[in-house]
Amino acid sequence: MGVVVPLDEAREPSQSLAPLLEIVNEDMNAINRIILDKAVSHVDLIPKLTHHLVNSGGKRLRPMLAIAASKLCNYQGDGHIRTAAAIEFMHTATLLHDDVVDESDTRRGRKTARLIWGNQATVLVGDFLLGQAFRMLVDVGSLPVLRILSNAAATIAEGEVMQLAAAKNTATTEDAYLSIIDAKTAALFAAAAEVGAAIAQRPADETAALRSYGRNLGLAFQLVDDALDYSGDSARLGKSVGDDFREGKITLPVILSFRRGNDRDREFWNRTIVQGEIGDGDLEHAIGLMKKHKTTEATLDRARSYGSIARDALAIFPESRERSAMQDVIDFCIARAY
Amino acid sequence: MGVVVPLDEAREPSQSLAPLLEIVNEDMNAINRIILDKAVSHVDLIPKLTHHLVNSGGKRLRPMLAIAASKLCNYQGDGHIRTAAAIEFMHTATLLHDDVVDESDTRRGRKTARLIWGNQATVLVGDFLLGQAFRMLVDVGSLPVLRILSNAAATIAEGEVMQLAAAKNTATTEDAYLSIIDAKTAALFAAAAEVGAAIAQRPADETAALRSYGRNLGLAFQLVDDALDYSGDSARLGKSVGDDFREGKITLPVILSFRRGNDRDREFWNRTIVQGEIGDGDLEHAIGLMKKHKTTEATLDRARSYGSIARDALAIFPESRERSAMQDVIDFCIARAY
Repeated sequence: MGVVVPLDEAREPSQSLAPLLEIVNEDMNAINRIILDKAVSHVDLIPKLTHHLVNSGGKRLRPMLAIAASKLCNYQGDGHIRTAAAIEFMHTATLLHDDVVDESDTRRGRKTARLIWGNQATVLVGDFLLGQAFRMLVDVGSLPVLRILSNAAATIAEGEVMQLAAAKNTATTEDAYLSIIDAKTAALFAAAAEVGAAIAQRPADETAALRSYGRNLGLAFQLVDDALDYSGDSARLGKSVGDDFREGKITLPVILSFRRGNDRDREFWNRTIVQGEIGDGDLEHAIGLMKKHKTTEATLDRARSYGSIARDALAIFPESRERSAMQDVIDFCIARAY
Repeated sequence: MGVVVPLDEAREPSQSLAPLLEIVNEDMNAINRIILDKAVSHVDLIPKLTHHLVNSGGKRLRPMLAIAASKLCNYQGDGHIRTAAAIEFMHTATLLHDDVVDESDTRRGRKTARLIWGNQATVLVGDFLLGQAFRMLVDVGSLPVLRILSNAAATIAEGEVMQLAAAKNTATTEDAYLSIIDAKTAALFAAAAEVGAAIAQRPADETAALRSYGRNLGLAFQLVDDALDYSGDSARLGKSVGDDFREGKITLPVILSFRRGNDRDREFWNRTIVQGEIGDGDLEHAIGLMKKHKTTEATLDRARSYGSIARDALAIFPESRERSAMQDVIDFCIARAY
């Protein structure tokens, strides 16, 4: 049943990511070369804008998962490299469009591409990267992999539209919120893990297990991210505490605080999140309400619970360095919150 | 060598499209059903926004070309239907993003989706349709078709970025302009025609011939479109005469007028197109300069020349109803200008 690491005594985040980094290190160098290479275009703006985001110190968690999963499945070819690079391109395209949709000014502690090159170029370069991702996947030539990732592309966009429709609606239920993050975040984590089994032509139970691992890890990841936005440390976060609050984003800490609060609290959430009337001290008051109702704590409880599903999903694989490293990633995602 | 229709005495546009419509009619009904079906999502906004554009009376020229080309190549399966529907989705996604990038208010004589549902939803639904298009292509299962269309997706976005970079630059050369329309418009026409041969597994010379036909038809189509923007009839056009002028778009009629004009003319173009200072009578003055320097005429001359390349490209195919209908489409595209 693998090594059981009590999730609430998680190790240092950097420690729990180390085994994964060791496994994927060599392949990630190849992936980074492909990413730079495939961002090249005779249209100057495309590599410039892409490099700005690609070199901004993202963790490349999704391609790392794809590589680790393919190794867990004893894949012997080299198609996993281009597949993983394509996944990072898909993710980058999503981030570019997200920043336009959310009108964000910073990402990973730097100015967003849209602030430097404008919304128009940012939308179009995102489109280019998505096209380029599919080009790379066609080169790999596996229809099952193409199926998994084209499904993910459509689902992610669906999730983003759902999020837009739920925006500023404090009556959003926890279920509705989960459907949103399932689509906009967990779908790509699920796909990244699943392609490892698909490219190695493993049987359906292993494909399903990796998909479940990725999905639940993605849910945990997003929940932690949403909690951090009200409790994190800006420098480590690469974004400012309170970004979601200022953008009027409905995330689980807000949904729970709205439900657990009294009428006065609800008035507060409606004024700030819905009407966008945010003044001095409002962020602190929001954080205070979350502490009072223990809603960031509840959000992290949910995250731990999905993390535990992700861990169990991998149990059908025999114990290995890869399996253990992939389980450690769960700790990494959750330990970010502490 | 087929029937030679003198291009400058082209028939009524509706007449020259009739043979194509007859050939594709049955399949187009199936395609229209698939388009409605695949725009469905549990996220309400997606079918709403998609239907708005899809039902706005576009000609569906690109899927019709894909169908006609597959019939020209004696394709016997049914994969061409989903392929053609995917092409229309790709085109629709491009239009949605275009309208956001160009800040357009009308398209095909109706309010643009972005004006009704906002830029954010429009970008995201475009992303959904592109993902959905690849999903449909994976279902068809032909890697050559997937290769052609993923190349087209990346190239179209590249062309749009090029156009953005050239925006408001009156010194754009005719060559640079041609590279832009080659990518942003001709690439999808080329791909639509080429997939007909690819899905029927025809030899390389036929694939290349159909690609060349589509590409040159696309160039002619875009050139006529650009000329119409300064000379057309708004009701027939579905957009207002002068839209490109007001948006400061650099198209061939402007490029040629700038080059053929004197210093005072260049000052005029710089003030209006570059600086966007457009007053009463400026559109009329622009049209006057184009008449004086015969630049819409020159643009249409270029269009006819590409049309003639498209016609010759089909000559390697034996004479057939399909070939003749596809050649008539060239007349249709050019006759729109008269």
